[in-house]
Amino acid sequence: MKSLLLGILFLVALTAWSQHRDYPIQAVPFTNVKLTDNFWLPRIKTNHTVTIPASFERCESTGRVKNFEMAAAKSGKFCTIFPFDDTDIYKTIEGASFSLSLYPDKNLELYIDTLITKILAAQEPDGYLYTARTINPKEPHHWAGPERWVKERELSHELYNSGHLFEAAAAHYQATGKRNLLDIALRNADLICSVFGPDKMHVAPGHQVVEMGLVKLYRITGKKEYLQTAKYFIEERGHYTGYDPKSKDPWKSGAYWQDHKPVTEQMEATGHAVRAGYLYAAMADIAALTDDKAFLNAIDSIWNNVVTKKIYIQGGVGAIGDGERFGENYELPNATAYNETCAAIANVYWNHRMFLLHGDAKYIDILEKSLYNGLISGVGMDGKSFFYTNAMEIKNSFLHKDMEAQRSGWFPCSCCPTNVTRLIPSVPGYIYAQKGSDVYVNLFISGTSSITVNNKPVQIEQKNNYPWDGKLTFAIAPKTAQAFNLLVRLPGWSQNQAMPSDLYTFADASDKKVVITVNGKPENYTVQNGYAVLNKKWKKGDVVEVNLPMDVRKIVANKNVKNDIGKIALQRGPIVYCAEWPDNNGKTSNLIIPAGTSFTTEYKADLLNGVTVLKGEATAIKVDTQHNAVSTTKQNFTAIPYYAWAHRGKGEMAIWFPVTITDIDIISK
Amino acid sequence: MKSLLLGILFLVALTAWSQHRDYPIQAVPFTNVKLTDNFWLPRIKTNHTVTIPASFERCESTGRVKNFEMAAAKSGKFCTIFPFDDTDIYKTIEGASFSLSLYPDKNLELYIDTLITKILAAQEPDGYLYTARTINPKEPHHWAGPERWVKERELSHELYNSGHLFEAAAAHYQATGKRNLLDIALRNADLICSVFGPDKMHVAPGHQVVEMGLVKLYRITGKKEYLQTAKYFIEERGHYTGYDPKSKDPWKSGAYWQDHKPVTEQMEATGHAVRAGYLYAAMADIAALTDDKAFLNAIDSIWNNVVTKKIYIQGGVGAIGDGERFGENYELPNATAYNETCAAIANVYWNHRMFLLHGDAKYIDILEKSLYNGLISGVGMDGKSFFYTNAMEIKNSFLHKDMEAQRSGWFPCSCCPTNVTRLIPSVPGYIYAQKGSDVYVNLFISGTSSITVNNKPVQIEQKNNYPWDGKLTFAIAPKTAQAFNLLVRLPGWSQNQAMPSDLYTFADASDKKVVITVNGKPENYTVQNGYAVLNKKWKKGDVVEVNLPMDVRKIVANKNVKNDIGKIALQRGPIVYCAEWPDNNGKTSNLIIPAGTSFTTEYKADLLNGVTVLKGEATAIKVDTQHNAVSTTKQNFTAIPYYAWAHRGKGEMAIWFPVTITDIDIISK
Repeated sequence: MKSLLLGILFLVALTAWSQHRDYPIQAVPFTNVKLTDNFWLPRIKTNHTVTIPASFERCESTGRVKNFEMAAAKSGKFCTIFPFDDTDIYKTIEGASFSLSLYPDKNLELYIDTLITKILAAQEPDGYLYTARTINPKEPHHWAGPERWVKERELSHELYNSGHLFEAAAAHYQATGKRNLLDIALRNADLICSVFGPDKMHVAPGHQVVEMGLVKLYRITGKKEYLQTAKYFIEERGHYTGYDPKSKDPWKSGAYWQDHKPVTEQMEATGHAVRAGYLYAAMADIAALTDDKAFLNAIDSIWNNVVTKKIYIQGGVGAIGDGERFGENYELPNATAYNETCAAIANVYWNHRMFLLHGDAKYIDILEKSLYNGLISGVGMDGKSFFYTNAMEIKNSFLHKDMEAQRSGWFPCSCCPTNVTRLIPSVPGYIYAQKGSDVYVNLFISGTSSITVNNKPVQIEQKNNYPWDGKLTFAIAPKTAQAFNLLVRLPGWSQNQAMPSDLYTFADASDKKVVITVNGKPENYTVQNGYAVLNKKWKKGDVVEVNLPMDVRKIVANKNVKNDIGKIALQRGPIVYCAEWPDNNGKTSNLIIPAGTSFTTEYKADLLNGVTVLKGEATAIKVDTQHNAVSTTKQNFTAIPYYAWAHRGKGEMAIWFPVTITDIDIISK
Repeated sequence: MKSLLLGILFLVALTAWSQHRDYPIQAVPFTNVKLTDNFWLPRIKTNHTVTIPASFERCESTGRVKNFEMAAAKSGKFCTIFPFDDTDIYKTIEGASFSLSLYPDKNLELYIDTLITKILAAQEPDGYLYTARTINPKEPHHWAGPERWVKERELSHELYNSGHLFEAAAAHYQATGKRNLLDIALRNADLICSVFGPDKMHVAPGHQVVEMGLVKLYRITGKKEYLQTAKYFIEERGHYTGYDPKSKDPWKSGAYWQDHKPVTEQMEATGHAVRAGYLYAAMADIAALTDDKAFLNAIDSIWNNVVTKKIYIQGGVGAIGDGERFGENYELPNATAYNETCAAIANVYWNHRMFLLHGDAKYIDILEKSLYNGLISGVGMDGKSFFYTNAMEIKNSFLHKDMEAQRSGWFPCSCCPTNVTRLIPSVPGYIYAQKGSDVYVNLFISGTSSITVNNKPVQIEQKNNYPWDGKLTFAIAPKTAQAFNLLVRLPGWSQNQAMPSDLYTFADASDKKVVITVNGKPENYTVQNGYAVLNKKWKKGDVVEVNLPMDVRKIVANKNVKNDIGKIALQRGPIVYCAEWPDNNGKTSNLIIPAGTSFTTEYKADLLNGVTVLKGEATAIKVDTQHNAVSTTKQNFTAIPYYAWAHRGKGEMAIWFPVTITDIDIISK
């Protein structure tokens, strides 16, 4: 009840700000959406009951909390590995804040308050907050530099810490209405704004996120300096003279940090993929808030570059392990795919903002692809095991580079687990959006949303068994009957588009159409920017039913993606499939799926928390090591959703399958 | 007759210098050795009749000669690609000089004299010789720098040009007794010695060779400045402050140029493999001439590093294409092996000098391995087609990087063809060596050598059908009977050593011994540093017969060489074999050679100018693309000498063969 009230307050605040320029489309905040969904609610619940407590527990046991206590006491020795370990506490508080909106939990709130007290005590009088220095300023962490911020560009991550503090503070304030963390954040933000700027200290932050964070504080407070400093940090990129712009080494050229040229001249995604995603998201914020056309032009170009040349079929970005970064155009190797979980999360943030700017469903296509595939693959069903990287294939061969084939607990650098912690419970915030009386339905997640259209409340209740079933129902319940546009996203995959680009296409076109009925009667609809536009005078009791065709589709990659030539991948609805060893005779790298292979589907409630599997017949190559012989046989083939892999022990996994054998490479041992 | 006279003069000169410190062992110069060999003489003849004229013709037609004419006229525009194109003329003159010793040829001598006249005319009054600047000093070649030598470290190669001039001048003087080219070289060397030095201009030459060249001029003239400047250039390495010693990028760290640390601290082979080989050879020269223990220590370490971790089984070095350089330890990939022909040549120069320093047969094992395998593979049987790089395998797959699968004429950078031109006719100079009354026989090449032992002439006549037959005869003919040690090299491979390291070993030990008879009677011999020591009072008519076991041997690589795990290579005598597509059903990447496979040998006079082939039975994997099926069959297997590959059209080739199939990779198209 309290969060609903806060949500409404938030909406009122949004309306008050509407005289300011901002995104033309506004997301319906997570506080206004209550889930009943079979797919997402259990994940959010596990996140609440397992991941968040486990994450706080790790923050305690690893010494992250102790770092704050020592900073308050100004004695001791920083006792974790990285100077940005403070952020794990902030990120978990952010996740807990989102989660409290669905699962009110007094004990959790109380615990967070004790943490906030410790954070407050660790903050220096002028607002500086960075335990790696404050504990002992004479001997700060070796990455921190002898003075505040002097190593910010390369290593210290002081502004990265601040950025995650701001993100957490905004979510905590939004979810609870409490200002205790927000006030800490504002004092820190004021200090930063007083230190950095065109006529002050110069720096392009080493790891972006402070820019998004400052924008959130600006939205809450209306304080222009926050927006200006965020913009300043972004514009400062590309002016450092210590790089060699001609170097192909991304560290030497500055491209690793997106610092190789001014951001308005950057037209391709480059460098560390998390930093990049956070930068592009912040540029979208600034473009929306200041109508900056040059920023808009750059991120439009960069988005096109990612979507046409630098994203994996399961939504992963950042193909290259050396630098956790974007590769060259079409450089999407399977055997060594890096695909950091954090990069998928950053990509969700960015694509959501691109949608809010442009109102096109293609951005949500990318968001949905990440969300249902290469992002949630990053967390195990137990809620406490994680992938830092997300493999595209696992082959049991000593010749192949060892990719992560099993989830672990925390990592020395635990950015991904805590990023998952904050992303999962924020999903309700991505479902709906609004532009005046246009109401967007972006994601198909069961639950109830409270929206205000033309100052009158409207409830929308979704019921479905998505992503396994394409039948979606929406009960529209305005308090009083009124006309507005309901814009229901028609997923690209339901429109014969495997991607909003030619990077991946369906092998065969389907002539199945999306069927929409209102109160049982077929509804004619126009399609606009990828949305079915339903323009009616809606009244309580109206039911919209949308039927998405859920055929199994074969995907082929652009011929420039060398490792996917002659291969197919499998998708059904938004779900990208993989084959895993336990379902396929212990092996997957030996499978061929000949042209013409057809698939049946089966929902298995007891498998991997309930998944629809694909079944068909594959050609398998058998190696008889004893007789040095190979042969080919037919065998049953089963594919599971990619996100659910790696829950049944270590072994082979594949997403792309050859259609024919042209040749083979012999592996000997 | 004339060259014999000159050779004797040369030996007298050597004796005169013997009060100076130099190599403890002295090579018997090429001028004293006349070949009748079935393997090498045809190669030297083809080099003489085809390669040398073709090379001079290319120097004319590409504008290399014209560059000299324009430099003399001080007008025109440098008309070839690289500022070091002058060296192709020098290197061809060097090769022609060696060749004249076996094939006296008045017309060739005359033509060389006309070239020397043009070179003289292009030389500036103070001795500077570099057509890329002299033609138009105001607008020199863009690599040359605005002033002499200011870009020497990176790009200009002015000292590289000088080095090859010195090498050519020394060979030309040694072969013909003429001073016309030598005088040009000495004027240039005097200029260089006046410009560079500890108190003068500083530079570590960008591409080594001037150091070896200066040493040769020192040996001819006794002028200490040449030796001092050569040593200075070497000692100057590792002191440039513009590199980042911590960078992994060999260009940024200076390792590409062997300039990352002082040479006496360099313990591993690194950077561009040709530059490295020339450096290490020059360090051996300086170590011999100045008794520099620190130089000796460094090259001993580097040699161990190469032989234990950085050389291919066919003698190639410089595994990495990006930078034509040495890789990391055990980084010897087959699919992308670079193996520049020039690097094999540099390695021969260096190993010959290591032998002259240490008197150990292991250096000649490496020299012989290069010479009979990965070096002569660089030139085609026609004498006018060349490999710049020497592949370790060719697989017909779009997924595999395209290595050179056919020899070409010249390359834009024609260093390798002209380097082959000078190496081939120098082979007679590597056969014999002497240390007082110890006479070393290093290579088994038929012909007659005139040696002076204890001031008395001795003739040694070798007759054999090496490398196909292990029966070697040596007719020893001292003018008057006298006692001396004949040290006959026992090749490592005849002693169960595939390499003088554990990088490659024979899969099975052989108990066959080398049998030596003198005048038909078995001779007991001691073995010393890899040589059979035959200590007798020799008299005219004495015949030594050495029988080397010529079994087919299987080689396995050190387990750290990832790409060779589970594989074998084949060797017989000094010859490393490969399988090539025309002899193996059009394909080689599908072949398995099971444990226990035995081989027969057959000399085929009409194949590839006469080669002994190996025959056996292999397991072949067949791909039936029409039915998406694979299977295994037995088929006849034929291997040819590696050096002879790529004469019958483009197709697959392999040196390493899996023994078992552990797994396969599917290639799809």
